[in-house]
Amino acid sequence: MSKQPTNDTPSSLTPLSEIGEFGLIEHLTGNIKLYHKETIKGVGDDAAVIDAGENAILLSTDLLVEGIHFDMIYTPLLHLGYKAAVVNISDIAAMNGIPKQITVSVAVSSRFSVEALDELYKGLMMACERYKVDLVGGDTSSSNKGLILSVSILGEAKKEEVVYRSGAKSGDLICVTGDLGSAYMGLLLLEREKKVFQVNPDMQPELEGYDYQIGRQLKPEARTDIREKLKQLGIKPTSMIDISDGLASETLHLCKQSGTGCRLYEEKIPINPQTRELSMEFKIIPSVAALSGGEDYELLFTIDQSDYDKIKDAEDISIIGHMTGSEEGKAMVTSDNKQIELTAQGWDGMKDDGAGSR
Amino acid sequence: MSKQPTNDTPSSLTPLSEIGEFGLIEHLTGNIKLYHKETIKGVGDDAAVIDAGENAILLSTDLLVEGIHFDMIYTPLLHLGYKAAVVNISDIAAMNGIPKQITVSVAVSSRFSVEALDELYKGLMMACERYKVDLVGGDTSSSNKGLILSVSILGEAKKEEVVYRSGAKSGDLICVTGDLGSAYMGLLLLEREKKVFQVNPDMQPELEGYDYQIGRQLKPEARTDIREKLKQLGIKPTSMIDISDGLASETLHLCKQSGTGCRLYEEKIPINPQTRELSMEFKIIPSVAALSGGEDYELLFTIDQSDYDKIKDAEDISIIGHMTGSEEGKAMVTSDNKQIELTAQGWDGMKDDGAGSR
Repeated sequence: MSKQPTNDTPSSLTPLSEIGEFGLIEHLTGNIKLYHKETIKGVGDDAAVIDAGENAILLSTDLLVEGIHFDMIYTPLLHLGYKAAVVNISDIAAMNGIPKQITVSVAVSSRFSVEALDELYKGLMMACERYKVDLVGGDTSSSNKGLILSVSILGEAKKEEVVYRSGAKSGDLICVTGDLGSAYMGLLLLEREKKVFQVNPDMQPELEGYDYQIGRQLKPEARTDIREKLKQLGIKPTSMIDISDGLASETLHLCKQSGTGCRLYEEKIPINPQTRELSMEFKIIPSVAALSGGEDYELLFTIDQSDYDKIKDAEDISIIGHMTGSEEGKAMVTSDNKQIELTAQGWDGMKDDGAGSR
Repeated sequence: MSKQPTNDTPSSLTPLSEIGEFGLIEHLTGNIKLYHKETIKGVGDDAAVIDAGENAILLSTDLLVEGIHFDMIYTPLLHLGYKAAVVNISDIAAMNGIPKQITVSVAVSSRFSVEALDELYKGLMMACERYKVDLVGGDTSSSNKGLILSVSILGEAKKEEVVYRSGAKSGDLICVTGDLGSAYMGLLLLEREKKVFQVNPDMQPELEGYDYQIGRQLKPEARTDIREKLKQLGIKPTSMIDISDGLASETLHLCKQSGTGCRLYEEKIPINPQTRELSMEFKIIPSVAALSGGEDYELLFTIDQSDYDKIKDAEDISIIGHMTGSEEGKAMVTSDNKQIELTAQGWDGMKDDGAGSR
């Protein structure tokens, strides 16, 4: 039988934990050759961009594995289906595109029933209806352990409307939609109740009053409305990304791809008041929940300074900082006026085994 | 915690085994609503077809799960990467399209090393180079068990060149490229050696002399050459599909989508002589290996009778039967002139736990 470097990791081999998720992607995709001039943008943004004449085609994909990306104990399949579609739709929104078609592949173990998959597909189709996306393909197969979901999405945009991670420049204003940190608080609430439930299955879950946080975690929405809103304001973002891993990690992506530094202002970060309270209850600084929590699926984008007047009164959009020259570093200015370096506390899949932790 | 129909299957719920793979897909995707007029073809072919002006965009996706679709004991990661790309490329070939871009998502457990993933990507990129396909995206994440690979592919074709499963009519000739059954014999050889290896790890594997069959299983190729070949012959197939599940299953797909019956002729089915011998050694009728084995990734297509003269001397293409009216049923005429009903022995994922058995 063939020998290959898999089942054991002798000292000569490099464990995945040593290189981390982002390092690994860079390592694996660093020397890709492209053969087609139509491929405008390959790896390294929220979606690939392909030239299709007047329009650009956007392509993105996500793989969701039970026990890694979601915990079946507190994730209803209806919501899981909805969320799986939404996180992909969000990737298209992050390119300033319009989501159009998705494919869904599902692998399930035999412990699942037809009715369980019905729930999953019901959720998928609810998202398809809400966001006007066509479910056009995919397959089902068996899995030896749990549920695996792979969703791919096609989107469309006029070529000149596509927004990349790489277009920001020093002086640009950093903006974010909605509020941050609530999805993470929702996750912590669900994890807490899971532990209670495991100790005493007869206990009633104490989730009442936290609909917003639980909803943000289990049934997030994609900000497909922002494209139209910015258009109406006469603004084209210079760079954009969606917040799946947390504000810090996403800001660092924009800085890296754009070759800039940044200053975020802690007091400007939009956080829901109840989420703020809940955060203190969990002994987490609220801004840390926003910076590192992730899964809010809001949009983070930069605009030219000259667009300030157009956006300053826009509802549901906050200006939270600005880009700087790269030599000025990437930092957050805290409420008590200290400057701390931004570090990606985003998901590091190789060290992490928590659910929902991307 | 939420209650949902998953972990237990009480009598009121339907086990997946009761409905089977094809039944399940139909059940889940039966009432899909489409919102975009650009979506020409959704679920139900080798790829979705999307109107992009003069051209059509083709989209397909495949999910590969360790222990279900491949066995790491005899699948080198280099080959796995290559094959994962090829099976998707084959889907585009089956639509008479040109493969263009792929995305690859990988989930791995921590037992894998960076070097192991390097091998996988090396294989992927070998296929990308061979077939001139751009690797444009995807991600890596962790898995709690083994390796999961999800590949999506975009292809392109002029709208009028796209070939669907549904265009065949009574009287059309059924053709197949290359030869069939060898990939399955390769699988059986590998499975046999695996058993020997498990009993005595010091035994040398007896695979010598079977390079063709092993190669067909571990490193299949996609018939992207057929599109150009048929064009040169002046033929546009009336229907087409690639052979991933076996000749019987794929023929039935064409019949079902086209609303026809069919007659296949056993003696016309192209089978490699060594594969024929090997098949007898394994006590399997060679035509059964071709009908049910799968994974040959040859193309099965139908052409108008009037194209017979154009194709009759074409190298590497066999005419193996013809379509009939649906009332005449779907049957194979055996070498001793008996007529047997065609049944899909293709992969039934809910009952099957064998590796490589799709």
